[in-house]
Amino acid sequence: MINRATIHRRTVVKIRDGRWRHEKDAIVVEEPLEIRLALPGTARAIALATLMRTPGADVELAAGFLFSEGLIRDRYDISTIRYCVEAELDDEARFNTLIVTPRPDLDLDLEQARRLFFVSSSCGVCGKASLEALRLRGCTPLADDPPVRIACAALAGLNDALHQAQDLFARTGGLHAAGLFAADGRLLALHEDIGRHNAVDKLIGAHLLNGQLDRLCQSVLLVSGRASFEIMQKALMARIPVVAAVGAPSALAVTLAQHFNMTLIGFLRGASCNIYAGAERVMAPA
Amino acid sequence: MINRATIHRRTVVKIRDGRWRHEKDAIVVEEPLEIRLALPGTARAIALATLMRTPGADVELAAGFLFSEGLIRDRYDISTIRYCVEAELDDEARFNTLIVTPRPDLDLDLEQARRLFFVSSSCGVCGKASLEALRLRGCTPLADDPPVRIACAALAGLNDALHQAQDLFARTGGLHAAGLFAADGRLLALHEDIGRHNAVDKLIGAHLLNGQLDRLCQSVLLVSGRASFEIMQKALMARIPVVAAVGAPSALAVTLAQHFNMTLIGFLRGASCNIYAGAERVMAPA
Repeated sequence: MINRATIHRRTVVKIRDGRWRHEKDAIVVEEPLEIRLALPGTARAIALATLMRTPGADVELAAGFLFSEGLIRDRYDISTIRYCVEAELDDEARFNTLIVTPRPDLDLDLEQARRLFFVSSSCGVCGKASLEALRLRGCTPLADDPPVRIACAALAGLNDALHQAQDLFARTGGLHAAGLFAADGRLLALHEDIGRHNAVDKLIGAHLLNGQLDRLCQSVLLVSGRASFEIMQKALMARIPVVAAVGAPSALAVTLAQHFNMTLIGFLRGASCNIYAGAERVMAPA
Repeated sequence: MINRATIHRRTVVKIRDGRWRHEKDAIVVEEPLEIRLALPGTARAIALATLMRTPGADVELAAGFLFSEGLIRDRYDISTIRYCVEAELDDEARFNTLIVTPRPDLDLDLEQARRLFFVSSSCGVCGKASLEALRLRGCTPLADDPPVRIACAALAGLNDALHQAQDLFARTGGLHAAGLFAADGRLLALHEDIGRHNAVDKLIGAHLLNGQLDRLCQSVLLVSGRASFEIMQKALMARIPVVAAVGAPSALAVTLAQHFNMTLIGFLRGASCNIYAGAERVMAPA
């Protein structure tokens, strides 16, 4: 069994009752897992899906995913599940790619599988590769020009502002919210959806359609759930410098924020929060 | 503007302090949105992605999604965004398919887009179609044989059991958990992941690999977040009769549970919960 860390320890800024202190904190690891299917009778394997997951029980995850998607029905449909062993890969990438070989005579429902398929040319994915992909897509670190600074007091008011505005829309307890705020804490826009990612896309899309993308680079995004790699990726594409989350960030989200000069705040609950990256954009009380 | 309901009202069983009452409750709507890209110079449109979303701001969602994925850079890259208007579609399906036409001379990054593409033959998706797809995949309603019954007292202990077991593994506050319980409330298995879906797939995959799939049809699944369509779909594939969620269910999750004779419990917090479907599997105190 491969024993990979599911938790990273990093130094973060913890703000409690107006006091700042630097402390070690445990952050959950998030890494891509590419699941490939070896095609019977050929030397080819096709990439079925890439899941952002916490390492651990990878083989179980791959088996469960194939089962849930209806491609296999029991364990006898699988011959082997193994990590990709191409020599040029480092350990991190190697243990992020699983190759599933079905039993030779399995009647694969390729029609069903086609919805998941995409042809991938590279074997091996990892957090570094995910960040590199963003660079190739043209993403550069945020320039901090003009500088965006948010006061602790403004930060402390974001939760309430979001909840009050959200109450106007829905009381189901089932909707995620993405709120955009000015640096002084004013709510500029709010979108809701059952999916966290969708709420962020709606918010960014509304600004795009209104010709207001440039407003985003001076704003603060608050999401009601956790801050994953994908949320940070969307914020980076939209050049939003400060992302705050009510929940926890992932380790890859923190790394992304550090690489691209973004501010990432987690566990924002009133006057308490943790700053995982870019603390210089948060102004301590005088 | 199309004004579609984002909330459904349904009668649910609310259990509070050991007392059962039937009440109307607001449930957030979840429906698939298929985003198609019209290929310049042809009459063809290809399906880019299907997002499970709450209706509302669909055009913004499509624009934001394309932007976040790096396919468009500003609003001038889009000529039109419109709903699919094929005559044979009913309103529900029609307003779940958006066709984005890029400006004719847009240099589409098809390499990047390929990761999202799949060719879809049918225009129009809706909740009904999502359920129908499950039937076509061979899913039948659960037979309740042998019957699975869980006592209110056992239900009330699930949260604590999950939290205690989860504490052993991680204290990041960032991990979702999926726990499998016997009908008497005993914890049988626990898997964690930053993604709720992954935690469920790990749990199901572990049982598949151990040859214990038949254990699932007598068990209760508890997820730490919300109960979406996808979570219910995975439980249905694995024939798990009772799904409990700490958070809210979506309307489509409730409909799925009703169609396939599953029990769906939401907002499970100690002795309080709401039963959205299949209440006959929960035994009231004598």
